[in-house]
Amino acid sequence: MRVKNILVAGNYEEEFKKMDSNCSREYRFLHADEIADSDLSWADVYVGSKPCANFNLAKVKWVHSFNAGVNNYLEIDGWEKYNVLLTRTVCSFGERISEYCLSYILRDLQYHEEFLFCQKEKKWMPKTPKMIKDQTFLIYGTGEIGQVVGKTLSEFGATVFGVSKSGKQKQNFKEVFDISSASSLICKADWIISTLPLTHDTIRIFDTHFFENMNGSVFINVGRGATVDEVALLSSLESGKVRHAILDVLSEEPLPENSTLWGRKDVIITPHISAITQKNEAVECFFDTLWKLENNEPIPNKVDFSKGY
Amino acid sequence: MRVKNILVAGNYEEEFKKMDSNCSREYRFLHADEIADSDLSWADVYVGSKPCANFNLAKVKWVHSFNAGVNNYLEIDGWEKYNVLLTRTVCSFGERISEYCLSYILRDLQYHEEFLFCQKEKKWMPKTPKMIKDQTFLIYGTGEIGQVVGKTLSEFGATVFGVSKSGKQKQNFKEVFDISSASSLICKADWIISTLPLTHDTIRIFDTHFFENMNGSVFINVGRGATVDEVALLSSLESGKVRHAILDVLSEEPLPENSTLWGRKDVIITPHISAITQKNEAVECFFDTLWKLENNEPIPNKVDFSKGY
Repeated sequence: MRVKNILVAGNYEEEFKKMDSNCSREYRFLHADEIADSDLSWADVYVGSKPCANFNLAKVKWVHSFNAGVNNYLEIDGWEKYNVLLTRTVCSFGERISEYCLSYILRDLQYHEEFLFCQKEKKWMPKTPKMIKDQTFLIYGTGEIGQVVGKTLSEFGATVFGVSKSGKQKQNFKEVFDISSASSLICKADWIISTLPLTHDTIRIFDTHFFENMNGSVFINVGRGATVDEVALLSSLESGKVRHAILDVLSEEPLPENSTLWGRKDVIITPHISAITQKNEAVECFFDTLWKLENNEPIPNKVDFSKGY
Repeated sequence: MRVKNILVAGNYEEEFKKMDSNCSREYRFLHADEIADSDLSWADVYVGSKPCANFNLAKVKWVHSFNAGVNNYLEIDGWEKYNVLLTRTVCSFGERISEYCLSYILRDLQYHEEFLFCQKEKKWMPKTPKMIKDQTFLIYGTGEIGQVVGKTLSEFGATVFGVSKSGKQKQNFKEVFDISSASSLICKADWIISTLPLTHDTIRIFDTHFFENMNGSVFINVGRGATVDEVALLSSLESGKVRHAILDVLSEEPLPENSTLWGRKDVIITPHISAITQKNEAVECFFDTLWKLENNEPIPNKVDFSKGY
């Protein structure tokens, strides 16, 4: 593919100019709201974290998303009809999400809250922290991100199982199950972590049946909010089947002020920060993908439309 | 060494009987306060987390401490005069202390407190967490525990320097410095972690000069409390040279109720729990040491009296 005209939705000029120092290509840097049809017709590639309002697949041959999750792009029909390439950003998301998960896992195992409470009361009350090696984890999603999370936890000696659509075995998991076979494991896990993308198959996959199978364990969502039936989650928090929920992604973001999730002591809400794209990393990933395209190298971050990621 | 009579200070009967199932040795399990001189005369080895009140080095040939730190035993004079062997427990302390440190490091880098505050206010305020790989650590003490902490942080890509009495290079550290050469590094570290034992050389080693060299960084103490001049620490917290102090060990334990440390927002107090000895692990370590002694194998957990650990 020859790429001459690059349309970037967002204020990334500095980072692009740094990477393409001899300015061998033409750029337009525009806010997503300012993009006109003529810009889309001009562009060989559209780069941005979301499609602009007048986005039109007939007018581009390649779209590069600044995010790992591309569900907002896939809501648009016609990718296969118009034969448009969609690529996504894969950078340190795995490492970032691992550190996010690990921080909340250790907060629990090391009794941060209990010791903070004792400190407020000026009470010296020893209690032995639990260790990661004695925990069992079930990770939904065994792609790039799930694998890094699995590797990190395995290195601490934890027992880590994976769950994926295919159930294909992957490194860093003791065993990978397909979604239907995983249900017997749900009650055995101390922690369930979802790194799942949002697709037709995963929408509200975490439902009443799933949560009621949990066994006083903790649910962490670093995938996509709409994979969770939040009403079901609330009811299983009430019943104690879910001891704690750590939610970095919600079905509506920002989480509305009137959501009952905000006020619960057994829920932690973070504002979709476990894998924020760093501008320099995102731009590096774009140029890396561009180089591979121009040199006919394989594109590992190409979206498979049949899978949705 | 032939070991027939084992005197155990504490309620460890079940664990010992499990490890010595054919009961080839004689045991006395007594509370430290109940131990009589006749018990000490009878014993070949004294095993316990601290010396009993009437402890007498003339009467035993071997003492095995259930802790990693042996300063309480070393307060007694005469180890070399009576040629008594002192061994200490080395088990999963390194892993436990690593997880303790990591939990508080990630609590800070992942902005747990800020997001908890936003949640209380029902505010969605994204902020990108920092990553371990971008942090510089200075670890005092490069023994078994310091090395595991260094290895854990290095595996996340952090820059980790070590400080020890000798400055001898050790694995898992980018470089190890002796104590006098380390002072130029103090201001460059984001985190300073002490795993130092308490010896004549380390008592109040963290003094005004040390803390005033820090640069708004965080101090974690998982070694021994008396290595810290707590008045100096308080004053450097006030001046901002120390941004945060995480103290699992204090010069007086339990920390007295009237200590001003309890109430500070920039201090976290935990009740000496980062390396609690697990009964089964402690007993396994004892039998492992016993086996090595009886088979003339090297004893890596033998205390060197010239070093004090």
